[in-house]
Amino acid sequence: AQSSVTVFGVLDVAYRHLDNDTAGTRDVLGSSGLSTGRLGFRGVEDLGGGLKAGFWLESEVKPDEGSQPNARFWHSRATVSLISDSLGEVRLGRDFAPTYSALADFDAFGTTGIGDTTRIYKVWGSVDSKVRNDNQVTYFLPANLGGVYGQLSVAAGEGTAGKKYYGGRLGYAAGPLNVNVGYGQTEVTNSDVKLTVIGGSYDLGVAKLMAAYQQGKYQGNKDKHYTVGATVPVGAFVLRAAYSKSKSNDATDRDADRIALGAVYNLSKRTALYGTYAVIDNDDAAKFTVSNDYSTIDAGDKSQGLEIGIRHSF
Amino acid sequence: AQSSVTVFGVLDVAYRHLDNDTAGTRDVLGSSGLSTGRLGFRGVEDLGGGLKAGFWLESEVKPDEGSQPNARFWHSRATVSLISDSLGEVRLGRDFAPTYSALADFDAFGTTGIGDTTRIYKVWGSVDSKVRNDNQVTYFLPANLGGVYGQLSVAAGEGTAGKKYYGGRLGYAAGPLNVNVGYGQTEVTNSDVKLTVIGGSYDLGVAKLMAAYQQGKYQGNKDKHYTVGATVPVGAFVLRAAYSKSKSNDATDRDADRIALGAVYNLSKRTALYGTYAVIDNDDAAKFTVSNDYSTIDAGDKSQGLEIGIRHSF
Amino acid sequence: AQSSVTVFGVLDVAYRHLDNDTAGTRDVLGSSGLSTGRLGFRGVEDLGGGLKAGFWLESEVKPDEGSQPNARFWHSRATVSLISDSLGEVRLGRDFAPTYSALADFDAFGTTGIGDTTRIYKVWGSVDSKVRNDNQVTYFLPANLGGVYGQLSVAAGEGTAGKKYYGGRLGYAAGPLNVNVGYGQTEVTNSDVKLTVIGGSYDLGVAKLMAAYQQGKYQGNKDKHYTVGATVPVGAFVLRAAYSKSKSNDATDRDADRIALGAVYNLSKRTALYGTYAVIDNDDAAKFTVSNDYSTIDAGDKSQGLEIGIRHSF
Repeated sequence: AQSSVTVFGVLDVAYRHLDNDTAGTRDVLGSSGLSTGRLGFRGVEDLGGGLKAGFWLESEVKPDEGSQPNARFWHSRATVSLISDSLGEVRLGRDFAPTYSALADFDAFGTTGIGDTTRIYKVWGSVDSKVRNDNQVTYFLPANLGGVYGQLSVAAGEGTAGKKYYGGRLGYAAGPLNVNVGYGQTEVTNSDVKLTVIGGSYDLGVAKLMAAYQQGKYQGNKDKHYTVGATVPVGAFVLRAAYSKSKSNDATDRDADRIALGAVYNLSKRTALYGTYAVIDNDDAAKFTVSNDYSTIDAGDKSQGLEIGIRHSF
Repeated sequence: AQSSVTVFGVLDVAYRHLDNDTAGTRDVLGSSGLSTGRLGFRGVEDLGGGLKAGFWLESEVKPDEGSQPNARFWHSRATVSLISDSLGEVRLGRDFAPTYSALADFDAFGTTGIGDTTRIYKVWGSVDSKVRNDNQVTYFLPANLGGVYGQLSVAAGEGTAGKKYYGGRLGYAAGPLNVNVGYGQTEVTNSDVKLTVIGGSYDLGVAKLMAAYQQGKYQGNKDKHYTVGATVPVGAFVLRAAYSKSKSNDATDRDADRIALGAVYNLSKRTALYGTYAVIDNDDAAKFTVSNDYSTIDAGDKSQGLEIGIRHSF
Repeated sequence: AQSSVTVFGVLDVAYRHLDNDTAGTRDVLGSSGLSTGRLGFRGVEDLGGGLKAGFWLESEVKPDEGSQPNARFWHSRATVSLISDSLGEVRLGRDFAPTYSALADFDAFGTTGIGDTTRIYKVWGSVDSKVRNDNQVTYFLPANLGGVYGQLSVAAGEGTAGKKYYGGRLGYAAGPLNVNVGYGQTEVTNSDVKLTVIGGSYDLGVAKLMAAYQQGKYQGNKDKHYTVGATVPVGAFVLRAAYSKSKSNDATDRDADRIALGAVYNLSKRTALYGTYAVIDNDDAAKFTVSNDYSTIDAGDKSQGLEIGIRHSF
C-alpha cells in the first residue's frame, strides 16, 4: 500500500517580538510564520477512463510546543475525491470554504504569520465556516476550461447553528492574470452571515501585484475588508508588502488597518528563511493583534511584531 | 527505516438520510458507511528460522468532521507480535476481543455503516471489552492447521471494572465453508458478562450466505442476538442483505429486529461506491437507531436510514 | 515528497508484576520497558555547500492501551534544524533539555522501564524543563571537533513559570571513553532551579561501565542523585545492572536508593526480548515507585517490580 501514499508536511518555527503598546511586549518562539505547520497523507488512484480517486488527510503542527493546536486531529483537511479529467471533481469531507480560498489566494502573506491579512478580519457570532467547513460536499470545475476555474460547496448543518453553509467561487487564470469572485452564506440563529469576495493578481515579472476585497453582512450590519499587496522576486529573495483595512458599521465599530513588510530567502525549493514586520492600527474599540502568541491588548491600541524564522517542507 | 513501514488507511464518506419516526429526520454527511475510516502504520520483520516480528498501529478517522473519534489516538489497534510459521502468533497490546471478531466476520455488512448488525446489540454495564480490549495478550494458532484457526486472549483488568477479560475463538475455513465458535468473559462488579458466539458462512458462488448467533448472560439475565445475511456478486456490483434480531429478558426488555439492504459498486479494488437502506423495529422500551449521527428517538419507535457513499482505501 | 520522509518508531510492550509493600501488588500489561514507544517522521535535505535542513516529529505511543500518553501529540520532539558540516546545528522547537541528555546517556537502563534511574529523581515545583523544553533554541557543535561535542540551549518562558530555561552540555567521546558535563537553570517563582550534571562511560569490551551524578539547587536546598551501572554483552544477550541513590536536604527529606538488574536478548537489530528486576528502598517520607503503572505506596515503603517484554523498532 506504501506506493499509494505520500507523506508530506511543513515545519515552520519563528522567533517573534510582539509589542501591544500599553499591554507591553512579549518574546516568543512561535510556529507558522511563512507556511502553516502540518503533517499530511495524500494519494491519487487512477481508475482508468480519465477517472481518479483521491484522498487527503492533514493535521496542523506547532513545533514550538510539540502540539496539534486543534482538538480534532485532521482539522486542516480530511477529504475523499472522485476526479474526472473532463467533468471535474467531487470532494467530500472537511475542507476550506470557497469564500476563504477566494480571499486567501490573493494575500501577499498567504494568510499566515504576523503578515496574515485576516488578523484584522471580523467574524460575527459562532460562524464555524469562516475558514473551513465540516460535512462539505464540493464540486470543482475540471482543469480544461481554458483558464476558467471554480467550485460550488454545500455543508450540512446537522442541527448545529453556524455550520450550515453554501457558497462558491468562480475565477479565471491565464498568463500573468488571475481573478476570482466568491460568495458564501452561513446559517446562524436569527440571521445568515453572507460573504462576498473579489480578488485578483497580476504578475508583471518584476513584481506580482495582488488585491482582494471582502464584504460581510449580518443582522443589518455590513463589514468590509480589503488588502492590497505585492511580492517582488530578487534572486533567491522574495520581498513582500501588504496593506489591509477592515471597516464595520456595527455597534462595536471594530475598525483597523494594517501594514506588513517582509522578505523570504529561499535556501532551496523546500527550505526558506524569512523575516516579517507587521503593525495593526486599531480604531476605537478594536483589539486586533498581530499574533495569537500575545493577544492581551487595550482597545484602540497599536499592535506590532517582528518575526524571523525558518520554514522547511517535506 | 522507511522500507519496513507500510502506511495504510481508509477514507469513507457517506450522505445519510436518517428518519427516527416521531423524533423526525436528519440529513448528515457521515463517515464509515462501507469500511471504518482509518490511518495506520504496520510492518513485518523476518527474523529468520520461520520467526517474524510485526507491529500494527491504527487510528480511526472521521473525514466528515476531520476528527479522530476517540480520545486515545490508537484506539483501533496498537500491537506488537512475535509470529512463528509453525507455532503461531503471540500478539500484545490493544486489539479486537475474539468474541467480537467471531460475530463480526459473519455480518453481511461487516459491522459497519447503517447496516451494522451490532446497532441492535445490547451491552450490559461498563463492559469495555464489547469490541476491543486494552492490555490484551493473544495467542493465535498457526496458519498450517488444514483450515483450523483460533485464538486465546487474556486482558489485564489493572484495577478497573469491566476490563478484565478472557476469551477465545475456534474456527474452520476451507473451500466455500467458514465456521467458528467463540466464548468470552468480562469481570464486572457483582457479576461477570459471559458471551457465547457461533457464526458461519458458505459461498455458493452466486451468493455467499452467512449467519451468526450471540448469547450474553449477566446477573441472571439472558440476551440473544442473531443475524442472517447474504452477499451476491453481480459483475462489479455486490448486493448485500441481512436480517438481525435481538431479544433480552431483563427488566428493560430492549428487543428489536432489523433489515438491511444494499449494493456496492467497485470502481477498483481500492475504491467503491455504495448505497444501503436499513430499518430497525424497536419493541417496547427499545431505542436503537441505525446511526450515531442521529440517536434521538422515542422508545419503541422505528429508526430507518439511507446512506450513499464512497470508500477509498490506500 | 515521499523520498524525503522516513517513518520510524518503536512499539514496546511488557508484562509487569509490581509490588509496593503495604499497598500490595498489581499485575499489568504496560509499555516502554526497554525503549520508549513512539511513532515519528523525520528527514534531512541537502542544501549544498555543506549545509543541510532537517526536521523531526515524534509522538509517544502506549500500545497497551492504544494511546498517546500526552495531550500534546508531538510531545516527544518537534524540531526544525539548519545543519552545517563545519559550523554545527541550530535546532528550533520542542526537544530534550541538555541537562537531561547529560544524565540519561549514562544510565545503564536508558532512563526507560522500571530500571529508569530517574524513577527516584526528585523535581521541585512546576519545573517543566526536567526532561524537555518547549520553545527551545539549541546550538550543537559540529561533528568534526576530534571527539568534542556539546550544545547550548535557551527556552523562552513566554510568561509561564517553570518554562524559561538556559543550559548546556560539553563532552568528549573517543574510542572507549565518553564523558560530559551539563548545567541548566530554570526560572521558577521566587527562585531558580539549578542543575549540574557529570556523566561518563568507559567500554572495556567485556563490559561498558557508566556513571552519572546530578546536583540540584532550589530555595536553599540541595538535591543529589547518582547512578553507577554496567552493560555486559554475551553473544546475543546484553546483561545490565545499575545502582542509584537520591539524597536531598529539604524538609520532606525524600531520599531513596535503588537497584536494577536485567537482560536483553536481541532477536535482531530491531527486535529484542527483555527482562528487568528493580527495587527502590524509600527513606522516611519518600514514596518513589518503580512504575507509573502502580504508584500507590506508603511513605518509606519498598517498591519492587519485574517486567518481561518485547521491543520492536521500525
